[in-house]
Amino acid sequence: MRQIPFLETPLILAPIAGPGTPELTAGAINAGAFGFLASAYSDAARMRDEIERVRRLTPKPFGVNLFVDPVLPPPHEERIHMANERLKPYREALGIPHGTGTAKPPQRYREQLAVILEMRPRAFSFTFGIPAPEDMTALKAAGIYTIGTATSVEEALALERAGVDAICAQGAEAGGHRGSFIDVDRPPLIGTLALVPLVVDAVRVPVIAAGGIADGRGVAAVLALGACAAQLGTAFLRASEAQTSPAYRSALTSASASDTVVTKAFSGKSARGIANRMTRELSTSDSHAPYPYQNALTRDIRDAAAKSGDADFLSLWAGQAFPLIREEPVEAIVKRIVNETSDALESARTALHP
Amino acid sequence: MRQIPFLETPLILAPIAGPGTPELTAGAINAGAFGFLASAYSDAARMRDEIERVRRLTPKPFGVNLFVDPVLPPPHEERIHMANERLKPYREALGIPHGTGTAKPPQRYREQLAVILEMRPRAFSFTFGIPAPEDMTALKAAGIYTIGTATSVEEALALERAGVDAICAQGAEAGGHRGSFIDVDRPPLIGTLALVPLVVDAVRVPVIAAGGIADGRGVAAVLALGACAAQLGTAFLRASEAQTSPAYRSALTSASASDTVVTKAFSGKSARGIANRMTRELSTSDSHAPYPYQNALTRDIRDAAAKSGDADFLSLWAGQAFPLIREEPVEAIVKRIVNETSDALESARTALHP
Repeated sequence: MRQIPFLETPLILAPIAGPGTPELTAGAINAGAFGFLASAYSDAARMRDEIERVRRLTPKPFGVNLFVDPVLPPPHEERIHMANERLKPYREALGIPHGTGTAKPPQRYREQLAVILEMRPRAFSFTFGIPAPEDMTALKAAGIYTIGTATSVEEALALERAGVDAICAQGAEAGGHRGSFIDVDRPPLIGTLALVPLVVDAVRVPVIAAGGIADGRGVAAVLALGACAAQLGTAFLRASEAQTSPAYRSALTSASASDTVVTKAFSGKSARGIANRMTRELSTSDSHAPYPYQNALTRDIRDAAAKSGDADFLSLWAGQAFPLIREEPVEAIVKRIVNETSDALESARTALHP
Repeated sequence: MRQIPFLETPLILAPIAGPGTPELTAGAINAGAFGFLASAYSDAARMRDEIERVRRLTPKPFGVNLFVDPVLPPPHEERIHMANERLKPYREALGIPHGTGTAKPPQRYREQLAVILEMRPRAFSFTFGIPAPEDMTALKAAGIYTIGTATSVEEALALERAGVDAICAQGAEAGGHRGSFIDVDRPPLIGTLALVPLVVDAVRVPVIAAGGIADGRGVAAVLALGACAAQLGTAFLRASEAQTSPAYRSALTSASASDTVVTKAFSGKSARGIANRMTRELSTSDSHAPYPYQNALTRDIRDAAAKSGDADFLSLWAGQAFPLIREEPVEAIVKRIVNETSDALESARTALHP
């Protein structure tokens, strides 16, 4: 049987860029889950600081997640300018100055990867691509367990060929960015229920399931599909230890599962969240700059909206199961989900053999 | 615990318009599943004939499925004409005469419903809407178990208010037509893993899960989510008893899960199938007539393509888990899936408590 050596329970806290905190990661781990720190938007100093904070809060192993960012030529200046013009009404509504559209996205992947190799977390997971062969070799030499993200069988096979230790299969239900790296513009949207067994059959390494799992019923379901573990992000968005803004928390309690959309409005890359004015108005390909330029362009808007509490200008990332989640401390969430998982498997057995 | 009274196992053969046959339905039932006959495209005479054929082949109960077709005003003639013009290259490629675009879709729902009330199958399932209150009353008076199809929590609640006995929750992975009836033009695409627990929590009636389930791992998964049973259609497309055309069978073995799309190209209503020339070329809202007019317009093309074996002009309906399916007699499929379900639940228990 395929197993991931360092898991106490088959429950993993996903890296959650934004709402995630070292307290959330350490809290999940201390309650029995494995947990990731989302470092994609951090510079080296912040990465070191947050990794050290997790280490002070828990003696147990944890993981760090990065985006594998290719160094891309910048898009045509006119496209950036046009995308920035589309943001003018939002800056006016928020009462912040209209930018010049010259914000350059930081390219930090190389320095971030150096911190991973220096600080040696137990696991390193990544999305949007595959580290170069020499980087994979260095990660293995450092004893770091590598987990790549796949949204299709083709991506899973590419990751296995590159030598990853495990694969996170991200179904279409997942909140936040699609991890896709083969057809980035039209990322596959394969539901977790179909994707997990397809990936399990295609590769030999352990498979972690992500997408649409927000309670123990979902964890039990993906274990039945053949996953070794379930990775949950949305389930922790209302945790006391998450720094989810009040406007974001409020949207999570008032919307319905039919309200999530896959949008490029905020970052230029496909991601699932609750629909709002920006996802509705910036839905065509000419309404935003490519990733990561759109992300740099909208940062001031998202920061101002978080402060003023205006959910129409926030990226409200959420998976399709988000109406199942609750406001609880992280320890209670982990313990409840582990118990629910046992109960769900017992109920399933009864349904099969009444 | 919520239960459906007439199930031997939690496995249901979905109604499969086209490839489905009375032999497939009766074969699934005799092997231990419950089964549906797809009668949406049948007139009263064919319905009676097929229901009698199932009754000759099995002594056990079965179900019949219909589309709840509202009587709609026809669309503007110019729109039908334009949609028909877009079909010209396909008729030329197939060597069949170009139609005038005057094909009227038959409106058979009233006569079909009369046959249901007359022939009294054990269960009646429906999609695209809800029968009128007086029809629901008549179905109940006839002792027929009613199952409505929901693609969102909102639709499930509307079905429960209308008095259905059970709800089939159809996730985004499902092959064939979306059962949606609230926002038909932009049907919700909620993954089965998220939709099932949301619907289970929202209603009191039994919930059947559909979409992305093609083997016992999927059945075990949806039982863990709280479904009473799993409804599988795609899993039976390569059954010996199915009348799936050779070109369709060939597409099912050569495509990958990333190749399915939700398209209105064939019928004017959103449905999931394997991408081909028609789904690629008729992907915009002005490229096809509304349902059921587009269905009537493309019928000659689909019939000719099935005969000539050209998969580019066939509706290749398939759920996202289709690469998991096998060429087997229906009895073998049912027995294998029931065994796999037990095994999957046992594996999940081991993964949770190693």
